Amino acid sequence: MNLLLLCRAEPLSRWQQPLTQRLQHDRLIVNAAQCAPESIDAVIADSPPQGIWQQFPNLRLIQSLWMGVDRWLNDPSLPAHVPVARMIDPDMVTAMTETVLAHVLHVHLRHDDMRRQQGERHWEEIYNPVAAKRTVGIMGLGSLGTVASRALTNLGFAVSGWSRRPKILDGVRCYAGTEQLAEFLAANEILVCLLPLTRATRGIVNAEFLRRMRPGSVFINLGRGAHVVESDLLQALDHGHLRHAILDVFEHEPLPREHRFWTHPRVSVSPHSASMANPESASDFVAENLRRLRAGQPLLGIVDRAAEY
Amino acid sequence: MNLLLLCRAEPLSRWQQPLTQRLQHDRLIVNAAQCAPESIDAVIADSPPQGIWQQFPNLRLIQSLWMGVDRWLNDPSLPAHVPVARMIDPDMVTAMTETVLAHVLHVHLRHDDMRRQQGERHWEEIYNPVAAKRTVGIMGLGSLGTVASRALTNLGFAVSGWSRRPKILDGVRCYAGTEQLAEFLAANEILVCLLPLTRATRGIVNAEFLRRMRPGSVFINLGRGAHVVESDLLQALDHGHLRHAILDVFEHEPLPREHRFWTHPRVSVSPHSASMANPESASDFVAENLRRLRAGQPLLGIVDRAAEY
Repeated sequence: MNLLLLCRAEPLSRWQQPLTQRLQHDRLIVNAAQCAPESIDAVIADSPPQGIWQQFPNLRLIQSLWMGVDRWLNDPSLPAHVPVARMIDPDMVTAMTETVLAHVLHVHLRHDDMRRQQGERHWEEIYNPVAAKRTVGIMGLGSLGTVASRALTNLGFAVSGWSRRPKILDGVRCYAGTEQLAEFLAANEILVCLLPLTRATRGIVNAEFLRRMRPGSVFINLGRGAHVVESDLLQALDHGHLRHAILDVFEHEPLPREHRFWTHPRVSVSPHSASMANPESASDFVAENLRRLRAGQPLLGIVDRAAEY
Repeated sequence: MNLLLLCRAEPLSRWQQPLTQRLQHDRLIVNAAQCAPESIDAVIADSPPQGIWQQFPNLRLIQSLWMGVDRWLNDPSLPAHVPVARMIDPDMVTAMTETVLAHVLHVHLRHDDMRRQQGERHWEEIYNPVAAKRTVGIMGLGSLGTVASRALTNLGFAVSGWSRRPKILDGVRCYAGTEQLAEFLAANEILVCLLPLTRATRGIVNAEFLRRMRPGSVFINLGRGAHVVESDLLQALDHGHLRHAILDVFEHEPLPREHRFWTHPRVSVSPHSASMANPESASDFVAENLRRLRAGQPLLGIVDRAAEY
């Protein structure tokens, strides 16, 4: 098969070698100019430009290197009949879990206050409650949210979860749907967003949502920037209703230099790096999906276009 | 029994009520001036002043509220025949484990570099290896080190341990004694000190030790300040041999305002707060030890004066 690899956000060097190694029966093309578009059987991409799809009339698979495919689905040129597969990389789930644990522990143990005290050369012991008295809410109970919740309950945290459809998770207090959102928000001191971006979740973190959050709580966004109405979040932080926001994703990425998030004392910015795929294990996944395509077997990670993830 | 509670470092209010609740058959005295010293059966203390012990001729137990008793043992007035008990609080072990995880994850995921990038409004994705490729060394494999090692291996880290006497821990590469120290130091990118302070470990982190550490590695001290020769550590940081030091304990506490650690760009300072006892569970432990004392049963947490912990 002829495979076109398109890397726009990530360095091509991260993917070319591990994919080539595993796809020795195929031709991996990294420069679209070097091939006839109608000869391409599958496109493998991180963040493809809008409007490109109509030039590939013979596609049989569109394979994402990322988990979130919201931008892809908003592209009107995306053909309805070609399967789109998300990346399902166990190392990516692990990386996200590590990031959730790192941020939640940092907030729980008040390491942010310790940094502030250091800035003032101020010595004052900090006493923290045990994890069982610290409430953490996870929004989104798919593969990421499920594993992250389990890791948090393993450390003893009091974990709640919220999802669109009702879920049952061992040791996690589960809430579902719009009607239980307010109750969920009122229950937690630390809130972690791991939602997929869909019509239903776009802009979900708005003024009303933030008002329902507990005074002094912390918001951690590892989902998508468009989950948040950024001006509403800034207002909640300015007013001190929220203690802090840890943001890995933004409406516009890279975050524009003049954006207030960069310098806001209650905001921690990271460069959309919460959970990167491991090129080794992720290339295994791509190779397996292509093997299935060749063999006519069911593909993995196929996006449900109605659910949008 | 007459019990004297001495709080110098911690607020008395943290301990008085939970201890009183559990010691209803005893008299808990919080002001030494209100009792005849010869009437005191046991002293419960966090950080007692030097030289006080000879005034209590009838002591039957000296109970520490802290795990580390190095300062106590250096007090020549400490009677040789009175048992000294360390605090063994499961919540304290949990708190220390949380602190170890928080710091190791922070370093592993380069959240420190993300903060630096934010300061420069610089957007650059950060790619991290999976935990299995990150080497973490734990110094001290007592109750703290054992639980912390297990928590790290559970997250997939490649964990080594070093202790004075040989130990065997599942999934942990164990080194022991002075003769294996250099090999242990060369094996790890992140080093966590959880040692007790004894004659053998005082000043162990000196120039020679630091030279043996891997270039670019990170040192985390959650043990005692006196484990470290502070001028040698500053030199290793100034020269860039060490990437960073995270320090919770210091030679002099509170850390003097003029100390270079406060403002060093490669040092994170926290106010000896890595692992505080939970007054509820710790008071359970004290009450149990006093019950045993009354019943003539073996006491818990008794310090081995020869081993110094």
